[in-house]
Formats: sequence, C-alpha cells, structure tokens
Amino acid sequence: MTLFKRSKLLWFSLLGFALLATLLQANAYAAHPNLVITTSDVDKMREAVTQPGRFTDEYKKVRARVDEQISQPIVVPVPKDGGGGYTHERHKKNYQIMYDAGLIYQISQERKYADFVRDMLLEYANLYPTLDVHPKRKVKAQNPGKLFWQSLNEAMWLVYTIQAYDLIYPALSTSSAEKIEQDLLTPVAEFLSVGQPSTFNKVHNHGTWATAGVGMTGYVLDKPEWVEIALYDLEKSGKGGFLKQLEMLFSPQGYYNEGPYYQRFAMLPFVTFGKAIENNEPDRDIFGYRDGVLQKAIDTTIQLSYNGLFFPINDAIKSKGTDTIELVHAVTIAYGRTGDTGYLDIAREQDQIILSGDGLKVANALDKGLATAYDFRSVAFGDGHDGKQGALVIMRSDINGEQALLFKPAAQGLGHGHFDKLTWQFYDLGNEIVSDYGAARFLNVEAKYGGRYLPENESYAKQTIAHNTVVVDEASHFNGNVERANQHAPTLAFFETNQYGSVASAHIDTAYDGVDMSRLLALVTLPELQQTIAIDIFDVVSDAEHQYDLPLYYQGQFIDSNFPLDAHTNTLSALGDNNGYQHLWLQAQSQPSEGLAKVTWLNDNGRFYTQTSVVNGDEQFLFTQLGANDPNFNLRNEKAVIRRVAGQKRHQFVSVLEPHGEYNPSKEYTLGAISRISDVSLSEQEALILVTLDFGEVKYLVAVNTATSADSDTEQSFNYQNLSYSLKGRLATYVIENNQE
Amino acid sequence: MTLFKRSKLLWFSLLGFALLATLLQANAYAAHPNLVITTSDVDKMREAVTQPGRFTDEYKKVRARVDEQISQPIVVPVPKDGGGGYTHERHKKNYQIMYDAGLIYQISQERKYADFVRDMLLEYANLYPTLDVHPKRKVKAQNPGKLFWQSLNEAMWLVYTIQAYDLIYPALSTSSAEKIEQDLLTPVAEFLSVGQPSTFNKVHNHGTWATAGVGMTGYVLDKPEWVEIALYDLEKSGKGGFLKQLEMLFSPQGYYNEGPYYQRFAMLPFVTFGKAIENNEPDRDIFGYRDGVLQKAIDTTIQLSYNGLFFPINDAIKSKGTDTIELVHAVTIAYGRTGDTGYLDIAREQDQIILSGDGLKVANALDKGLATAYDFRSVAFGDGHDGKQGALVIMRSDINGEQALLFKPAAQGLGHGHFDKLTWQFYDLGNEIVSDYGAARFLNVEAKYGGRYLPENESYAKQTIAHNTVVVDEASHFNGNVERANQHAPTLAFFETNQYGSVASAHIDTAYDGVDMSRLLALVTLPELQQTIAIDIFDVVSDAEHQYDLPLYYQGQFIDSNFPLDAHTNTLSALGDNNGYQHLWLQAQSQPSEGLAKVTWLNDNGRFYTQTSVVNGDEQFLFTQLGANDPNFNLRNEKAVIRRVAGQKRHQFVSVLEPHGEYNPSKEYTLGAISRISDVSLSEQEALILVTLDFGEVKYLVAVNTATSADSDTEQSFNYQNLSYSLKGRLATYVIENNQE
Repeated sequence: MTLFKRSKLLWFSLLGFALLATLLQANAYAAHPNLVITTSDVDKMREAVTQPGRFTDEYKKVRARVDEQISQPIVVPVPKDGGGGYTHERHKKNYQIMYDAGLIYQISQERKYADFVRDMLLEYANLYPTLDVHPKRKVKAQNPGKLFWQSLNEAMWLVYTIQAYDLIYPALSTSSAEKIEQDLLTPVAEFLSVGQPSTFNKVHNHGTWATAGVGMTGYVLDKPEWVEIALYDLEKSGKGGFLKQLEMLFSPQGYYNEGPYYQRFAMLPFVTFGKAIENNEPDRDIFGYRDGVLQKAIDTTIQLSYNGLFFPINDAIKSKGTDTIELVHAVTIAYGRTGDTGYLDIAREQDQIILSGDGLKVANALDKGLATAYDFRSVAFGDGHDGKQGALVIMRSDINGEQALLFKPAAQGLGHGHFDKLTWQFYDLGNEIVSDYGAARFLNVEAKYGGRYLPENESYAKQTIAHNTVVVDEASHFNGNVERANQHAPTLAFFETNQYGSVASAHIDTAYDGVDMSRLLALVTLPELQQTIAIDIFDVVSDAEHQYDLPLYYQGQFIDSNFPLDAHTNTLSALGDNNGYQHLWLQAQSQPSEGLAKVTWLNDNGRFYTQTSVVNGDEQFLFTQLGANDPNFNLRNEKAVIRRVAGQKRHQFVSVLEPHGEYNPSKEYTLGAISRISDVSLSEQEALILVTLDFGEVKYLVAVNTATSADSDTEQSFNYQNLSYSLKGRLATYVIENNQE
Repeated sequence: MTLFKRSKLLWFSLLGFALLATLLQANAYAAHPNLVITTSDVDKMREAVTQPGRFTDEYKKVRARVDEQISQPIVVPVPKDGGGGYTHERHKKNYQIMYDAGLIYQISQERKYADFVRDMLLEYANLYPTLDVHPKRKVKAQNPGKLFWQSLNEAMWLVYTIQAYDLIYPALSTSSAEKIEQDLLTPVAEFLSVGQPSTFNKVHNHGTWATAGVGMTGYVLDKPEWVEIALYDLEKSGKGGFLKQLEMLFSPQGYYNEGPYYQRFAMLPFVTFGKAIENNEPDRDIFGYRDGVLQKAIDTTIQLSYNGLFFPINDAIKSKGTDTIELVHAVTIAYGRTGDTGYLDIAREQDQIILSGDGLKVANALDKGLATAYDFRSVAFGDGHDGKQGALVIMRSDINGEQALLFKPAAQGLGHGHFDKLTWQFYDLGNEIVSDYGAARFLNVEAKYGGRYLPENESYAKQTIAHNTVVVDEASHFNGNVERANQHAPTLAFFETNQYGSVASAHIDTAYDGVDMSRLLALVTLPELQQTIAIDIFDVVSDAEHQYDLPLYYQGQFIDSNFPLDAHTNTLSALGDNNGYQHLWLQAQSQPSEGLAKVTWLNDNGRFYTQTSVVNGDEQFLFTQLGANDPNFNLRNEKAVIRRVAGQKRHQFVSVLEPHGEYNPSKEYTLGAISRISDVSLSEQEALILVTLDFGEVKYLVAVNTATSADSDTEQSFNYQNLSYSLKGRLATYVIENNQE
C-alpha cells in the first residue's frame, strides 16, 4: 500500500476535487474494513450491541474470550511441530484470536484490542522473514508452509489474518502498517502465490484457500494485480484461479466434486472471498456467477447432511456436520443474501452467531422467531463441472422416524475419492444403519500416523470392499487407479421422487473391464403399515465368469438369520490378501437355500433392521469383522455381511431393507423383533420392474418404469395377475391385498 | 370379602354404636382406595386437576392414553407365548391399562373407566379358572405362572391388578366384585402363596413381588391372614416374608445384595407394599423398620447410578437407570415422606409424574421450582444383611468433568452375582471408561435365546476374566461355584473420603485356595493440574507359583502404547479354553521392558485415557477382543488389555489411570493427546504407602495410611527425601515440585 493512501486526510485538504476523484479511482478499495465486514456493517453492529438479544450475547461471549486471551502474553513460537503439535495449534489459535480481537476492536472502538492484534502482527513480522520452509513438512504430496507444515494451513492463516489486519487498520500508525505489510503480509501472499505456482494455480480446494488469502490481501493492500491473479491464476489465463475453481469444482447445482466433507471445508474460502469480492467489486456479480453457483453450493452442503452430520462419502471424518464453523459462516452469508427463513432453522441448530453484518441479520431474525423448517429434499445432484459425470442421489422419507438413503453413482472426486461406484448408505432415527467407513484418520492425533490419513485409508477405507457395492474378483474399481477412475463416472439413468417415494437407477461399465454393473435403488413408503423400505436390485453382467461380492456394512448387533451360520469359533483368518480383503476377519459363512435369506440386526437407536435377500442357492453369505492386518489397531471393528457368487457371468442381487420394531430394555419391552416380509418376488415386463412384497397383513406391488424415454409424466398401463394397473412416472405402489383389522 | 362389608351404609343405620366399633375393628381396611393411594389423596388429586401444572399435564396425558386404549376391544388372550411374545406382552399391557384406567376413574369420577376395568377383570375371571400352568414355562430353575411363563410376572400382574381393583371397587356391583374376587383375585393370590411355597417364602426379590401382591390383596379383600403370611411367611414363622426380606436383602445402609439392577427391580414391590402397609396399618411403622431401611434403600439406589444409569455390576442390563418406572415410584414416595428437595432433582430428570398423593406433592414442588441438586457422594456401602460382608465402594470427583470410580469388594449377590471380587470400573464425562460387560442378554428378544440370559452370560459375563480383577491360573473366583462364593465375601480394610479424594482397600483370601488378593484404589484430585487420577495397587500373594492375569476393559479406540506390540495380523486364536478365556481373541501381545508401560485410548466422549503401569519386565500385556466361540454373535466385541505374570508366587500390579486432553474433529483440534505422567514410583514406610507422580510441570507425593488402627482423625508424620510431612487420616497429596507458569 502506498504512502498517499495512508495519509488521505492530509492529501484531501491539500488537493482539489479533480485530483481527489482520480485518487479514489486509483485506490478502489479504500475503506477499512471492507472484506466480509464493511464500515456500514460496523455501524449497525455498534448500534446492535446496545440492545439485548442473540447478537449482543455473542458479542459479550467473544469479547470475554478475547479479554481473557489478550491478558496473556503474546506467543508467536518458532514453527516446529506438525499437525496437532504445539506450535501448529498455537499459530492456528493466534489467527483466530487476531480475527476475534479485530472484530471486538471495530465494535467496541477500544484501542487495546487493535493494539493487541498489532503487537502480535509485529511479532509475526519479526519472525516470518527468518523462516525457511517448515521442518515437519511432508516429504512428498503437498507443498510446505513456513509457519505450518503445509501451505494449506498457511493460506488459512492468511485468510483470517488479512481480515484481522483490515479490521484494525484504522488504528495503525504508518510505520506499523508498513512493517506488517512489508515483512509479513506481502511475503506470505507472495510465498502462497508466485512462491507455489502449482498450488496456487491448482483447481482444488488448496488453491481456493490460497487464492482467497492472496486476493483479499490484494484488496486490503490495494494491489489489484493480486486480485486479478487470484481470480484468473498467476498468468491471468483463466485456466486456474478462483473463477475457474467455481466453474470446475462445483456442478451446476453446486455439488462439490470431492463430496460434502471437502465441500464444507472448501466453502469457507469460497464464501469469504466471494463476500469480499461482492463488497469491493459488486460489478463482478460474483454471487450471480454461473447462475448463482456459490449460493447453490451453500444450500447443497446443507442438503448433503443427515441429523446434522454430512454423509461421509470419500475421505470424510464422520463427526463433521452443519454446525462446523465453515457452515456457520456460509449459512450466515446465505441468509444475509437471500433472507430465506429456512436457513434460520439451520442457524438455530448451529447455535452460533457470527459477528458480521449478515450475522446481525441472522441474530435479529432468530430473536424475532422467524425460523421456518429447512426443506430437506429428495434430490439427485449431478456430479462434475457439467453435472453429467454421474450423480449423488439422496432419498428421504419421514413416515416413521426419519429415513435417508444415499446412492452414489458419483464421479471419483479426485485424490480423496473412494472406489465405491454405485454404493449406498441408509439412515434412520438419527443413526447410520447401512454405513460407510469414511476416512481412516484420527485428525491431528500425533500418535496415529501424525494425525494424517492412516495407511489403512489407502489399504482399506478407499477400497471397494469397504463399501456397499459389488467387487469383482476381489479387485477394487478401476484397479484402485485414481487417474483412470477420474476419467470414468457412472451414468445416472434416472431419478424420480413422487408420492410413493424415490427411485434411481445408474450403471457403469468402466469400473471393471468387460463387466457392466447397474443398480436400482428405491426408498418406498407404505403408509398402510407406517413403513418405509429400501429396495435394492444390483445387476452385474459379463461375458466371462467372475466372482462377485456385495457387502452390506450394518451398524448394530447381529440378532438373527433365518439360515444356519457356519461360524469360525476358535480361529479366525483374513478373508483375502489384497485390496482391503486382508483387513477383514471371516467370522462365519453360509449358503442359504433358495428363497428369502434374512439377516436381522439391532441398531443403537432401538430399532431392528432386516435385510431380506432373494437367493437362488448359489450365493454364499460371508460374515466379516474389520481388524485383520491392523497391527496398530487403527481401524474400527465394523461388521459386514458379504453376499458372494463365484464363477458366474451374470448375477442379480435383489434385497429389501426393512426397519421394524423396537427394543426398549429401559422400559422392558420389545416389539416387532421379527421381519414382517414373508415373500418378495421380482418380475419384468419389458421396461417395467414389478416387485411384490408380502407383509402378511398387507401385500404390495411396487412398479418401476425403467424405460429410457420415460419421465415423471409418462403414463403406462400394465396387467399383473389378471388385474390392470396404471403407472404414472417412474414409481408407484399398489395394495393388492389388505387384511388389516 | 364378606357381604357385611359391601353394604356398610345399610348396616350402619341398623346397628348401634357398639356394634359399629366392633365392625370397624374387624374390618380394619375399610376404605377404597387405600393401598398406595388413599381416599384423602383422591380428594386432593381431584382438586389438583382443576388447576394447570405438571400434575394436570400428566393426568391429561394418562387420560388420553387410557381413552385411546379403552376405545379398543378388550383382549385377554389364552396364555401361549414366552417373554417378549404376544400373549406375554398383552397381559403385561393389560395390567398397566387397568391400573391407569382405575386411576383415571378415581380422579375423573367417570364411570366408563371403572366399567372398562371391571369388564377386563371379568374376562380374566372367566379365563383364569380354566388355566393350567403356562405352556412355555421353563423346565427348571423358576416356578411357572399361569398367565405368564414365570410366576414372577404373575406376581407383578397381581401387584398392579389389585391396585386397579381397589381403585374401581366403589363402582362395582356386589355380584361383579364377588366373581372377580372368587374366580380371579383369590385364586391368583392362592396360586402365588400356598400354591408356590418355595417362591413365596423365599428371601429373594421373586418372593417380594409375591408377598407384596398377596399382602395387598389381603388388605383389599379384607383377609388379615394374607397380610400376616405376606409379612411373616406361610407358616408365620418370620423366617421368610416381607419383613425378613427387608431384614436380609438389604444392608443397614439399604444396599441390596444383588446390586443396583436388581435393587431397582426389587424397589417397586418394597415401596408399593410398604406404602400400603403404612396406609392400612400405620402402627406397624414399616418405614421405621430397621432404622428406616426402606427409605435408605431408595436413596442408595440413586447413589448407585452415574449419569442416570445404574452401575452395571452382576447381571445388569446397561440401559437401566434412575428414570425407570420403579425409581419414579420410589423417588415419588421418598419425596412424599421426607420432603427432601434433592429428590426433586432426580424427579425432574425422570420427567414423569406419578398420579398419586405423593406424585401430586412432587408435581407441585417441581412447579414451584423447589428442586435442589441431589448430593451424589463418595461412599462405601457395606454388603450383606449385617453390612459386614464386604462392601460396594463409590468414589466421585468433579474437578474436570465428572468422574466416578466403582470398587467392588462386595459379596457374591446370589445367583445373579458375578465372580468379580475386587473389580473396579471408571466413568468420566458421562461415559464408561473402564467397564464391565454387564449381563449377556437381549431382554425379551425372542431370537436371542428367547430373550432370557444368554448361555454366554454363564460362559463369559459371570466369569472372572470378564472383569477388571485378577484371575489366577485361568480359573474363576471360587471356581465359579455360586454356593461357595455366597459363603465368602471380601473384607473392606478401610474407606475414606476427604479433601484429597477417596481411598479404599480390601482383600480376600478365599476366592482361590492359598492365594491372598488385596487391592487399594484411590481416586485422587490434583487441583494444580485440574486433574483427577485413579491409583490402583493390586497385590497377590501365594506360597505356590501361579499365573496371574489382570484385565482392563477399556471403552474406546486404542491410540498408542509406549512399547511395541506383536500383533496377530493374519490369523487369530482364542486365548484359552475355559472360564471365559475361550471367548477372547488374542490380538496382540508384548513384554514391555522395566519402567512405565503406557496404553492410551480415546473414548467417544472426546477425552484420552492412559493407563500407566509400573512394570519390572516380567509382565506380558495381552490385547484381546471379545467374540471367540460365539457362533450366534451374541457378544459385544469389547476390548481389553490383560497384564499377565506367570510362574510367580507373588506379584504387585501398580497402575495409574489418567484422563487427558481432548479430541474434537468437528472443531478440528486435538489437545493433550499424550499422557503427562513421566514417572511413577512406589515405596512403603511401615503402614504408609507413598506414591510419587511426575507430571513434568508438577510433581506430587500421594500418601496413604493403611494402618489397621488408623481412621480419619489419625495424624501421622513421616519423612520423604529429607522433608517431613504430616498426614491426617488415610489419604493426602503433596506438591513436591511446581514449575507451572
């Protein structure tokens, strides 16, 4: 930033109007603060904290926290530790303190807060020029930082710190500002941009943090050039940079290619820099970019959750959900922009107010009780930048409890993607029922492989056998090759949701050479029984004979099977040698005879679940527990039942998942512990799939129209057992017998 | 009941005063209702429901439930199913409906409720005389019922039903009452008393239900004889019956010999019949019996809980806690009697109001906000009817979180007792940390061994290796012989709680021939570090060489050990053949070298826990997972680390349990994942045990006075490293170095 900006008042008095106009143009980003929070926001916040309410409560809370922290000595340690270690955590804590103290300075106008931030920045300005790259940097894979072991953390540091600097700028002397800009902010911004072109230009969330940090620094330090490279890449080619990231990393519906865990993580720099662009250069209409993809991305992140937690696809830590700080910021900005009171529902659950202009709007609206229920929908999110590289499908029902079915004919999602084409998950009454391992990682726990992704993340969690989808010949999809996987997404044949439930079908023929896999999943409501069921039809077809394995990872205690188990009681062996199989202990196996094979388990939510499979006598059922070849006890000991057929060219796996009953040992009753389904039959009439389900009291016919040409308006008639039926759209159910009282 | 009781009014007008006096004497239990609820209670309840408040809310809730149920047809099925089956659950539901409808009749005075109960009772009166013993009765072990597979359920049915009958009695015609009494209530009471002398006379909770049912029926049907046999046994010898049960089943402090799970279960007939005796025959001063043991028993049951759940010792289902209906009744009666506002704290957590006179008092007090914190104490409950057959020790701390340590030098506790002398459990932040399996049972789940105790309850859950105590030569305490175990309890050497924490020591030399086992456990608070630790010193001494195993069942994910593990990665075998060992898979072993052996795990509560053991190089550490020889997947797959020494005459196991740090993946930070203890040393000076603990910043000396003669007033001086210290009572800590900032 140049001298003439810093002594504006003096110049204004010396120069005439014409010159002033020129100056304002040259100095486009004049006011401080003007990133996420503007001077006008500050005025409103100062006014707000004179009144009681959520905003004032939060302000007092943050101020008390800041007061406690600024009473401590400033500690800016020489970087030494990796993730989770002392210096790592200290530097993370520091940028948070600076950000908070900057906010409190602006709202309270008490100088001590600004002075604290200034002093810490000056310490950083003393330290930073002395630093080489971090001693604990990873040898390969990612770029190192200086304050942190990876530059990703350095970029996050800058995103917070530049906002803190912007907030306290009005309180700085010229010399302090110069030192901080020259010895700290400029070197950090340069280190993260020209210093690491591969990261900065990368169309990837690490690139987003870097471009957000550098671009916002450009606004504050009055370096339009930095804003330009942040938006268009170092060469201003438009092949990288923030806009390319917005274009390539999100689908048109705002689905982020790596899945919700990383979408959540990526949202913060997107919405932060987006809001800063909006405030500094509204003409860029950043929130209108790509038909409003930023706004859609925020909404999609919320849709990708169940019971407050994100669906744990790909590398995902399961405890992350909509109450993470990234989503609090995103939801706040979304409400600020749209005024959609459904966001207040999420904000209320988050129970955290952001001290910003938008945060004030949220607080006021919550104070007034304006929240309305957020609308969680059944929806298929097209994957890939064009939305055509497969899809992530969510089906929901709340007829009895609150069910969600996730179907994943999605693209690979880059390096954090799992080889799990066409897998599914099921949720009910707040819990995982049919589950996914997520990532094998103990975040920041040094003793667990330095807090990084564990080796078992590669050897197990990413492998196909770790998921609820078909494994051919014990090899993972695409042979576990990421590059090949990134080239080939499944195809979503159709998705529809209507009064009867939701149905989707997808296929892929590139996961294995010469094998075509297609799956149809339906979440069907049966109001007569106050029941939801999931129907799963998985077809594998090949010209050659293969072994096909289809696991179902169930959460809960095994209760019963309607076929005898041959259990390995005195010794256990690993199921296989490679591709994740080496981590599975084979506990028992069975070959149920033709008919319905049932496996029932009891979830912690107190409900029973039965998978009823239609079998022909050629399937083995293998019962496994995770934990073999895990010498450091890194894995959770999850359980699966794997259906296996060997030496077959084609096979159809058909099953129905049925939630039922209640186990209540506290109140000492157990109801409906036994599956009610006594018969399942499947037939086809051209493109129609007909499934009959006999629940004893009620007998249903479920019809699905799989015709390529069909849509939700298509009407079709068909006959079944001498009766004629009419089907509108893709899915319908019919009560063909009802003996209820 | 005789005719002259039923037409009192007529008689009163015909007879003179003298005769009336005689009558009143003969007919001591005249008014209806007069069991738990009296006519005076009814008056107050009728008044109460005209006002808003908790009581009226509950009344409306129950009335709505009853309205819904009496709109259904009455179903009194012929008994057919065992526990959890349809007819079993239906008859349970019926007695609950009758009880509720009786209440609503008394409060609302609407005849339809009484009519409904009458009609159901008449159906039962038609059915009962036709019944033989239940078809699903157990072949051995327990007495059969007629309506239910076991007479225990039949007694429970009578306890509820006789109250329902008492409540609707004023609405009955003479003929209905006669039929119900002659064909139903009398036969049931006779079946449960003279029909099953062994159960009725047994000093056991099954006997309590039977005597309560029969005794209350005596009050209602005006059969003082039945009250007498209920109180003193069939022969009125006083060797059995309710009073003997009160005398023998509880310790003087009100600890129930079988443990809290069964104490909770037993409380309902005790407090119900107790209250009925109090209301009918106040002169018996039943609540004053044995220095108020009934009241103490209620209080003790609450003390035996952590985070709302009972400590799961012996056969216990872990989800049972203070919100069970038995405790709601007990706490209600306790508050009604004492007015102690601490009970309101529990009542508030229970969130359920009983429709009774005492329930009205609770509701009014809660409405007025009178609840005060219930005082959970560190306490040693003497076991056995004389309180001298060992003890159950609870130590509590809330310096950082909320810790509880349970130490169990208790008596065997009859047939549901476990062979776990001197075991311990540890709790923190609401969760189990060092745990006990509890009972192996899926209550009322037919598919799991008919919902009864599983075979694995005997083969594993009761065995010593399933607990955190020493196993000698892979045999269980008392060789698993209940009769022998019932003869020999451990001895509590001392227990004290003071400002430094709590400490207890106990020993037993009868669990194994020729082996003396003694254990000292202390829960010590270290305020300088905002830290609680548990110190465990377990001595085994014998003249012969033995193998000693000491398991620690830890709840959570293994994180790290400071010694290398030799893991069985590709095949697993069971650890042994018998006494529970056959159910343990041996996952890894190690022989740590001399010094401190640390094992760290991460609990779901987000906190790390490290067991730091002082080892001499002669201990093996075995890492096990439960699940071997479990062909029906009946067991939970819990984990243990077992310390083993072989071929030794004596051994001292010393360890410190240290809660530390926080894992917060949602907010992305991990703090203090590594144990802070760098040194533990143990020395003795005559009866003084001195433990030094080096936490780096702070170094502590912990002193315990084990002298037989010492008590909490004993003062003793001692020298340690040339400094002199003074110890008052049993336990103290001293900061011997403090380098904190």
